Amino acid sequence: MKPGIPQGTRDFNATIIKKRRFILDTIRSVFELYGFEPLETPSFENIETLMGKYGEEGDRLIFKILNNGLDNEAKREKATAAFDDILAGKTNRGITERALRYDLTIPFARFVAMNHGALVMPYKRYQMQNVWRADRPQKGRYREFFQCDADVVGTTSPFLEVEFANIYAAVFNKLKLPVQINVNSRSILSALAEGCGVENPGDITISIDKLDKIGLPRVLDELLGKGLSQEKISLIEKYLNVSGGVQQRIAALNKLLNAESSKKGIGDVATFFDYLGAENAENNNVVFDQALARGLDYYTGLIFEVKVPALSLGSIGGGGRYDNLTALFGVKGIPGSGISFGVDRIYDAMEELQLFPLDLSAGSAALFMNLGEVESKAAFAVMQQVRNAGVSAEIYFENVKLEKQFKYATKKNIHFAVLIGANEIKEQKAVLKDLRLGEQKEHPFAELAKVLSES
Amino acid sequence: MKPGIPQGTRDFNATIIKKRRFILDTIRSVFELYGFEPLETPSFENIETLMGKYGEEGDRLIFKILNNGLDNEAKREKATAAFDDILAGKTNRGITERALRYDLTIPFARFVAMNHGALVMPYKRYQMQNVWRADRPQKGRYREFFQCDADVVGTTSPFLEVEFANIYAAVFNKLKLPVQINVNSRSILSALAEGCGVENPGDITISIDKLDKIGLPRVLDELLGKGLSQEKISLIEKYLNVSGGVQQRIAALNKLLNAESSKKGIGDVATFFDYLGAENAENNNVVFDQALARGLDYYTGLIFEVKVPALSLGSIGGGGRYDNLTALFGVKGIPGSGISFGVDRIYDAMEELQLFPLDLSAGSAALFMNLGEVESKAAFAVMQQVRNAGVSAEIYFENVKLEKQFKYATKKNIHFAVLIGANEIKEQKAVLKDLRLGEQKEHPFAELAKVLSES
Repeated sequence: MKPGIPQGTRDFNATIIKKRRFILDTIRSVFELYGFEPLETPSFENIETLMGKYGEEGDRLIFKILNNGLDNEAKREKATAAFDDILAGKTNRGITERALRYDLTIPFARFVAMNHGALVMPYKRYQMQNVWRADRPQKGRYREFFQCDADVVGTTSPFLEVEFANIYAAVFNKLKLPVQINVNSRSILSALAEGCGVENPGDITISIDKLDKIGLPRVLDELLGKGLSQEKISLIEKYLNVSGGVQQRIAALNKLLNAESSKKGIGDVATFFDYLGAENAENNNVVFDQALARGLDYYTGLIFEVKVPALSLGSIGGGGRYDNLTALFGVKGIPGSGISFGVDRIYDAMEELQLFPLDLSAGSAALFMNLGEVESKAAFAVMQQVRNAGVSAEIYFENVKLEKQFKYATKKNIHFAVLIGANEIKEQKAVLKDLRLGEQKEHPFAELAKVLSES
Repeated sequence: MKPGIPQGTRDFNATIIKKRRFILDTIRSVFELYGFEPLETPSFENIETLMGKYGEEGDRLIFKILNNGLDNEAKREKATAAFDDILAGKTNRGITERALRYDLTIPFARFVAMNHGALVMPYKRYQMQNVWRADRPQKGRYREFFQCDADVVGTTSPFLEVEFANIYAAVFNKLKLPVQINVNSRSILSALAEGCGVENPGDITISIDKLDKIGLPRVLDELLGKGLSQEKISLIEKYLNVSGGVQQRIAALNKLLNAESSKKGIGDVATFFDYLGAENAENNNVVFDQALARGLDYYTGLIFEVKVPALSLGSIGGGGRYDNLTALFGVKGIPGSGISFGVDRIYDAMEELQLFPLDLSAGSAALFMNLGEVESKAAFAVMQQVRNAGVSAEIYFENVKLEKQFKYATKKNIHFAVLIGANEIKEQKAVLKDLRLGEQKEHPFAELAKVLSES
């Protein structure tokens, strides 16, 4: 049998893992600096927890787990009946009771709904785990991928989004990735929709959301195709053309939109930038973008999106405020706000801009060469001293030609080779060879750890 | 709908995650100190990769993923046919093509078989990921749990097991968990089986393996029940009663077993303890235990098991040498050896012996109290300075009674409260209250970060 892995999945080798860990550790350290607590939920949930939460398309893309023990006579009948449902695109516990996590938001809502009495509110949690989607695999889209979310529930404080903007800025500053953080309010989009006489804001925002990709003329064409009058199209055009700084945009929108219906949204944006501070906004490239829409239905207030202006990559992060997420699980009155980091895209951006620190690819500090049975036993003992001092080291397991051992060191990015032969044992000294510079020096066994840890 | 989670799975809150992370970070740091590289494989594999690798019982306990798009007309017929197979306990790609990882060894073997040409050999990898089993849930047994494995393939060096014994010792020393590391050789057990005229050593070892749990008399009873003669039972009794230090045991086994058939096993054990060194074995409680059997079939040489003598907990780690793991995937001639850490049991042992460091439960360093709109904005700015200096901090999001804010700090194990009111803003000083000691002092805003980071 020729082995392979499932479509849309990946093996991660050491190089990739170390780069991903660099990103994940950075995000985690900032979350904790800001007082967020970690949460982990199971990889699979009861199927009812997930179904119906992500729309019809989402339901189809959820990976369902086949019940075990279907060969059991007692379960047989149920399963047969259930299978008709499955074939009809429905779920039925007779054949599947569990499904793989599709995002981190719904399991979080489920957790809060189950535990809200015991949680310290406001509850600030972050979650960094895999999710699975049966999407058609393509470049940059996988069936197993990682999400990093931070949410706060149990408060409507205007501090929330300021915290999130600062978290984004802190993470991307640490990663040295130049980003733009766009902010808007769903309420402003609703006011625009109202101004256009459109009942469901989504009918407009789905087109506006494409502005970046297809440009203004085609967005307006699309809206025209939806039956909007020339007058309304003109309003939307003016809306999308509003430009300048925050205050200029606010002033322009105040003129353009109905004062009553746009009041909350514009007020939220103004408060956000007031709390954030002009200098902070300027330094961290936090921008009011009234064209920002975000796809997800559950957002109700301020929304976020992070982009890398230097790359045509789509967003590398996003989020927003929601009012009633846990209501899905029967618990009302827990408003919140959250953001997400797109780790795979951040990885791609860092790769493209060559931002990963070079030392991430370093192997062990030293390879102890194997010069024979007696020699390697002596080398092994010295190596243990080096390790005990916290310096990573390896011994070559077999007494083969030195050339092969050096090749192993080079391939594994090991910086130093340590040679201990009969003479060195007698003198209790090792030859330390710098494999990058080609230089070598002798050092007493007892000083090796110090020399290596300072190199 | 009342939310719940699937049987045998767990939500991990911050306290548990931090304790688990303490264990996992310790294991990872030792693996890397010893020059092992990380590997991660997908959560699900092609179903053929897993089926038939874990015995009949294992096949049943593998979680299979239902194919998506079964509502598609084209797939309907295939699925219907496949369902008959499923009902009969067989697999059929028409209904399931993927299955969740059952352990880390088979995916590792699959990875090596796919990539052996490109890997630097000997290949030393560690892997720390979840696995899933449809076992009946019970105390300490879950359907989703974590495994940590380290393996070396591509060499038969006697250094391997010495490295593994040292890794176990290093990890458990760091965790301060007092363990005993038992070592044996499968070849010695084979020699015993041969001495008993038993063809399949497993017939004997399955009983011997229960020695710890049921005691010698019942083990011998069980063997008697299997039809062994009184003479053979007496040989096994003598074998199991061999005691003393390594050299004593080796001498006794040399007398007891056929010299030719026990030569390799006894030689391996002798070499292992020679390379390990008597002092190291003594200090780290590494013991030759000729009764150690280990369940898994694929072990062929030295085997390991780690126990906590102070607790009746079962093993918290184990492993051994194998010859031909990748042959399952058509690639022969890659011998190896590996060990595993049982994270859940290590966690339970550390809990029971109260070994987790107390500071793991610490929350943010400081809570900035919310004393009003103007005050909280000033506090927020000071807090950002503190965070920028790397000190974790939070602001209370709403201007509620101080009592409620203090309660939040206490519940979240936050050490200091920072109070900034109108007076403090004027004087650019904050009141820093130590919530454990109840004391409070004033500090200039600019010095807060320093004071907090040194507390």
